[in-house]
Amino acid sequence: MTTVPAQQQDREERLTELVVRSFDACANPRLQRLMVGLVRHLHAYIREVRLTEAEWAEAIDFLTRCGHITTDKRQEFILLSDTLGASMQTIAVNNEAYGEATEASVVGPFFVEGSPEVPLGGDISNGAAGEACWVEGSVRDTEGRPLPGVLIEVWEADEDGRYDVQYDDDRTAARAHLYTDDDGNYRFWGITPTPYPIPHDGPVGTMLETVGRSPLRASHLHFMVVHEGYRTLVTHIFVQGDPLLDSDAVFGVKESLVQHFQQQPDGTPTPDGRKVDGTWSAVRFDIVLAPART
Amino acid sequence: MTTVPAQQQDREERLTELVVRSFDACANPRLQRLMVGLVRHLHAYIREVRLTEAEWAEAIDFLTRCGHITTDKRQEFILLSDTLGASMQTIAVNNEAYGEATEASVVGPFFVEGSPEVPLGGDISNGAAGEACWVEGSVRDTEGRPLPGVLIEVWEADEDGRYDVQYDDDRTAARAHLYTDDDGNYRFWGITPTPYPIPHDGPVGTMLETVGRSPLRASHLHFMVVHEGYRTLVTHIFVQGDPLLDSDAVFGVKESLVQHFQQQPDGTPTPDGRKVDGTWSAVRFDIVLAPART
Ligand SMILES: [Cu+2]
Ligand SMILES: [Fe+3]
Ligand SMILES: [Fe+3]
Repeated sequence: MTTVPAQQQDREERLTELVVRSFDACANPRLQRLMVGLVRHLHAYIREVRLTEAEWAEAIDFLTRCGHITTDKRQEFILLSDTLGASMQTIAVNNEAYGEATEASVVGPFFVEGSPEVPLGGDISNGAAGEACWVEGSVRDTEGRPLPGVLIEVWEADEDGRYDVQYDDDRTAARAHLYTDDDGNYRFWGITPTPYPIPHDGPVGTMLETVGRSPLRASHLHFMVVHEGYRTLVTHIFVQGDPLLDSDAVFGVKESLVQHFQQQPDGTPTPDGRKVDGTWSAVRFDIVLAPART
Repeated sequence: MTTVPAQQQDREERLTELVVRSFDACANPRLQRLMVGLVRHLHAYIREVRLTEAEWAEAIDFLTRCGHITTDKRQEFILLSDTLGASMQTIAVNNEAYGEATEASVVGPFFVEGSPEVPLGGDISNGAAGEACWVEGSVRDTEGRPLPGVLIEVWEADEDGRYDVQYDDDRTAARAHLYTDDDGNYRFWGITPTPYPIPHDGPVGTMLETVGRSPLRASHLHFMVVHEGYRTLVTHIFVQGDPLLDSDAVFGVKESLVQHFQQQPDGTPTPDGRKVDGTWSAVRFDIVLAPART
């Protein structure tokens, strides 16, 4: 640790205050608070780590490279936010614990509006490669009352670690939506989740490699649960025993979201009598929705 | 101020610690410190301002627009760093006060390698529009010893607020270098500095407008002073009485750098006998170099 002389500390503090005061005329109090907070934390960081001019230049260059690789289909700044845990922290701040309500996780870059609807017990995979997986559960409010007619969007990568939108053809696979039945229950066939890397051929991938981190995400299945009068829940479920649970590249794992995917030997009869080739798995995920924010 | 329940605070803190620990395997201790510090301040910011998901999305979009407008000739991330005072804070941290050594300021985007040399007393303007300005001074070390043969680079905008490189032709004007004489003195003709805006047709300009700030820089003349064995000094001088001194868009002004540009009525004889049409100004800037860092 370098000791910074008092006179120098004073100069640095005065500079921060000068910048803070430059936002005095801001007509939007919320924006002013955001800018002032940003300036204070940014300056505190520069001062704390005694950022060198070469490091500053490297940061400018890194942001530039993130900007240049970003397109309509590739969002490097979201990857950066995700891998620094800033996305999950924003989610934590905006989804404060509410009773037993199910915890949220990152939405990720692969949600697509307008997924096909499947009936209860239907198959969302539409040919996506992977082991069949029976998913069932209930949706309730925080008092335990079942919620019928709740919209559930689900999407996942195939066993090659790719979402349908990452293929060049226009396939729609391993994504769908369905609604809970009169008892607030749902069930569908998907595929057993497997790990995949976040896009890591850009500056964020290089950063992860340089600091010794993996770009792999723990295996997961995405859920978005939407119901009038309730807080929209965006989350995943994760696979108990997955060795990646502790090193998920975007810090999306919450203990409460880790579920037991029960492996079923070849030939085990399925819950709905469907004939499945080979092994399959089954998982239960009971969802609790918080009331909408007022 | 929202009060955050203790259990929620705990969740948020645990998330930050999880992200911090993800850098445990980083082989470069300096990089690890930079990343961990960044994560801590970024998370503290998100938690403190209770950043909403819409604000997060706006931030991602802002960075994306900064990246897309940035080219070889236009660096929006530097403008962002400048207008948040991050550039000046980095300079402050890297140029700690040393005795009476002259204070540093931002380099800005308009320095160009390979400027023409002018003799002592020569004219750097090369046709740049503006009122003639006689600049003279000395270069000394912190013990007051004159330093001969010191390289001084100077550059400035013309009275239309533009640097030579901002014109489409290939002009070189209002930029040059020269060397101190045997007594450590220098002198040259330039033009009286006038204010100019930083490029403000991009996202940073929009930000400044939205928060009620001006893109104008206080009038200034850039110096870079280089001598073996001494800390390179990158600085400006500013014009006493300039109403923009308190609102410089990049926070480059330091009181010690504000100089008296003495206005000379039409016909006043010049120090070197040169005939000048109309009014001119004269300024003295005595420079003190700190020893090189060891
Ligand atoms: Cu901070
Ligand atoms: Fe995913
Ligand atoms: Fe300038």
